[in-house]
Amino acid sequence: MAPQLEPFFKQVDDLSESFIDRLRKAVAIPSISAADEHRPDVFKMGQFLATELENLGAEVHQRPLGKQPGKEHLDLPPVVIARYGNDPNKRTILVYGHYDVQPALKEDGWATEPFELTIDEKDRMYGRGSTDDKGPVLGWLNVIEAHKKAGIEFPVNLLCCFEGMEEYGSEGLDDFIQAEAKAFFKDTDAVCISDNYWLGTEKPCLTYGLRGCNYYAVTVSGPGQDLHSGVFGGSAHEPMTDLVTVFSKLVDSQGNIQIPGLMDLVAPVTAEEEKLYPNISYSMDDLHESLGSKTSIHATKERTLMARWRYPSLSIHGVEGAFSAPGAKTVIPAKVIGKFSIRTVPNMESEDVTRLVKDFINSEFAKLGSKNTLNVELMHDGKWWVASPKHWNFTAAGKAVQQVFGVEPDMTREGGSIPVTLTFEQATGKNVLLLPMGSSTDAAHSINEKLDKSNYIQGTKLLGAYLHYVAEEPVKA
Amino acid sequence: MAPQLEPFFKQVDDLSESFIDRLRKAVAIPSISAADEHRPDVFKMGQFLATELENLGAEVHQRPLGKQPGKEHLDLPPVVIARYGNDPNKRTILVYGHYDVQPALKEDGWATEPFELTIDEKDRMYGRGSTDDKGPVLGWLNVIEAHKKAGIEFPVNLLCCFEGMEEYGSEGLDDFIQAEAKAFFKDTDAVCISDNYWLGTEKPCLTYGLRGCNYYAVTVSGPGQDLHSGVFGGSAHEPMTDLVTVFSKLVDSQGNIQIPGLMDLVAPVTAEEEKLYPNISYSMDDLHESLGSKTSIHATKERTLMARWRYPSLSIHGVEGAFSAPGAKTVIPAKVIGKFSIRTVPNMESEDVTRLVKDFINSEFAKLGSKNTLNVELMHDGKWWVASPKHWNFTAAGKAVQQVFGVEPDMTREGGSIPVTLTFEQATGKNVLLLPMGSSTDAAHSINEKLDKSNYIQGTKLLGAYLHYVAEEPVKA
Repeated sequence: MAPQLEPFFKQVDDLSESFIDRLRKAVAIPSISAADEHRPDVFKMGQFLATELENLGAEVHQRPLGKQPGKEHLDLPPVVIARYGNDPNKRTILVYGHYDVQPALKEDGWATEPFELTIDEKDRMYGRGSTDDKGPVLGWLNVIEAHKKAGIEFPVNLLCCFEGMEEYGSEGLDDFIQAEAKAFFKDTDAVCISDNYWLGTEKPCLTYGLRGCNYYAVTVSGPGQDLHSGVFGGSAHEPMTDLVTVFSKLVDSQGNIQIPGLMDLVAPVTAEEEKLYPNISYSMDDLHESLGSKTSIHATKERTLMARWRYPSLSIHGVEGAFSAPGAKTVIPAKVIGKFSIRTVPNMESEDVTRLVKDFINSEFAKLGSKNTLNVELMHDGKWWVASPKHWNFTAAGKAVQQVFGVEPDMTREGGSIPVTLTFEQATGKNVLLLPMGSSTDAAHSINEKLDKSNYIQGTKLLGAYLHYVAEEPVKA
Repeated sequence: MAPQLEPFFKQVDDLSESFIDRLRKAVAIPSISAADEHRPDVFKMGQFLATELENLGAEVHQRPLGKQPGKEHLDLPPVVIARYGNDPNKRTILVYGHYDVQPALKEDGWATEPFELTIDEKDRMYGRGSTDDKGPVLGWLNVIEAHKKAGIEFPVNLLCCFEGMEEYGSEGLDDFIQAEAKAFFKDTDAVCISDNYWLGTEKPCLTYGLRGCNYYAVTVSGPGQDLHSGVFGGSAHEPMTDLVTVFSKLVDSQGNIQIPGLMDLVAPVTAEEEKLYPNISYSMDDLHESLGSKTSIHATKERTLMARWRYPSLSIHGVEGAFSAPGAKTVIPAKVIGKFSIRTVPNMESEDVTRLVKDFINSEFAKLGSKNTLNVELMHDGKWWVASPKHWNFTAAGKAVQQVFGVEPDMTREGGSIPVTLTFEQATGKNVLLLPMGSSTDAAHSINEKLDKSNYIQGTKLLGAYLHYVAEEPVKA
């Protein structure tokens, strides 16, 4: 039975100006987690959220995470956790978001003041944090308020987990989630995260997969100190020459990873999976627009989406220790550290990847006959994540999209990683859904970040509708 | 007939404390040409030299070079030019040196105050500029003073050209030399530059050759802006992948340049030349000490010296635009600029080298099938230089070494470039000699720069003896 959502939707429309005002107040707090001098603003933003939630009738706690590692003069901002409703006959949904933002300065090239929500004639709401992630976080608060004001019973118990360090590596969050999964979050039935984006600008999506990332540093060293190329060029093995030669063996210009055995780890494409890609609302024009060029590798959207979502890729990021400034310097760097990473997919296990990487690089280096020393190190790894899109958590969200937008959502994966997704899945053992509010053009992390008014208001309706459908879904989908 | 040098040598010994005091005063002036705030000190050092030369009876001019290009609020320091003696029956020798120094801070790791001449128990005189190039410059002044005090007739007319911007690219000097070659320097018979170093620590050398340098930038670009490797890895051609692949084709780990045709430009080794290398006072231990490692390519000193002096080499210096900081960043750089240079030797003409480089890189890039764009640019070139070591300028210096040190000097070339050498040769049309005072361990440009007391005092004798032998050498050697 479809839930009766019209009163809720009408209330959201009626409150839309006050919801926008809530976002305006939040954007005005420059809660930049990466800037020490803005740490008080991050706390202020946590307090703002806590007060709003309390005023809506939620049970709220600001949980301290201690001192910031490496910067012990700074307190980490609290995790704001909240519970709204405690009815054992209702499902309990844990939602995650973050209230800190990326740095932003007008002089970086913003057309408007970054910490002043500015709405243009096309109803685009510009401001740092508008889409990443204050809009989605406030969406949950808006849902509560609309239910209260419309006098509609809230369909689930809602647990909130809003952190203030997401843009700076989510310091301390993993341990916190692990601990609270058995405490404050213990009755969680499913998790919903709204911190990513639609694939395009027209059609909502539900995201059920992410690639992982294994990041490597390859250090080549030889001379005791940087050398003058006039004096030593031709008589000493140069670390940069060796590094470049080894790096040229890793991947070709068409993106084909050349490390033997690596592609054998990748789960084969099934006929069923193959059918998913043609229906996704995406085009090569979309890719070229986001690339800012036509330097795409594949000819079709299907191959492009598969390359992004379900195949590994290898990118060379740069070299530490070599000459990297403008101008001309005739140095032979004594020690260079090349960085590259591999985006991983099912069924690539991190240890297998690292073993193949190290074996290959060491054997290629051995071929050079160099007296330099090479060392390969895994700097960090994050596992890929794939959820079951047939779980009631997803089918409920799918129905909510249908109800609010009148379309079936695209079922998408993403090429990047959102590490907290895997943390929630592993800590709670429950299904995790990524339910984005913003669109692909929102420019999170860039200048002129924005959230369209329709994405914010319709998105608020979507979050609420999702909770209603969640309440009605049978356990076995 | 050997000149009678004992009275001059004795006078130098008698004046050695006052010569060291002269160096102490010069080192105390932090004439750092690269630091705007030290520009007054550079002027002060120029004035110090001018005053000393005037007190010795020279005709001195401080020639302004105008404003500093790109920093028009700064005046370039003057070229201090001087004439000592104007006898048409004597040869006229033009000597060059520089009175500016590299930056130096105690906290960089100096054991002593860098601008306080500090003499240790082994008579090593530590201080910025001690060996590069205040010691050698003051050596010429010491020679004049010793002659005056000993009442010995000065054997030649001496012209001085002392600049104050050598450590910052010799701004404006080339045009100045070109102009004065027909004016103040017009009666020059030969040029002597004391601004390099012995090959080792025991045996003086005369330097008759330098390698040139062609410096290239290879730009690969594609995407409109830096990309996230999670989102775009696998679906876009990556400029860094293309750059690394192309760079891996340039040179192998053994230093062999792989650019077709390039080695064909190199003058063949003659039997006569081959015989020079075994006699040079140099060992693989010397190389390994200066490398700070045993990562040498060649097994013998002969091959090593040939690799440094008379064969080209190719060094990859680094990449601009890629990720170069510590840590891990998952960026796909949109535009990378790889820098490499080729040290050139006779008979490599710059245009030929550049043509071969561009043809090869463009053809290797074409093989990749990449949609990115590649551009090769010559950033700068400086020609190699080889003088005739049989000219009277060299034979005179050789006899002076024999007289002062009791050994035949090593006849050396250098792997690096000293561009002013070629400028003097081309502007005056006369033979140029590089006659070093300091030794290979003096650490010019590094922390704890020093000049051994014996190199300074014996070096002063050498410069004076050289002028006496110059006066006696027949025109045709």
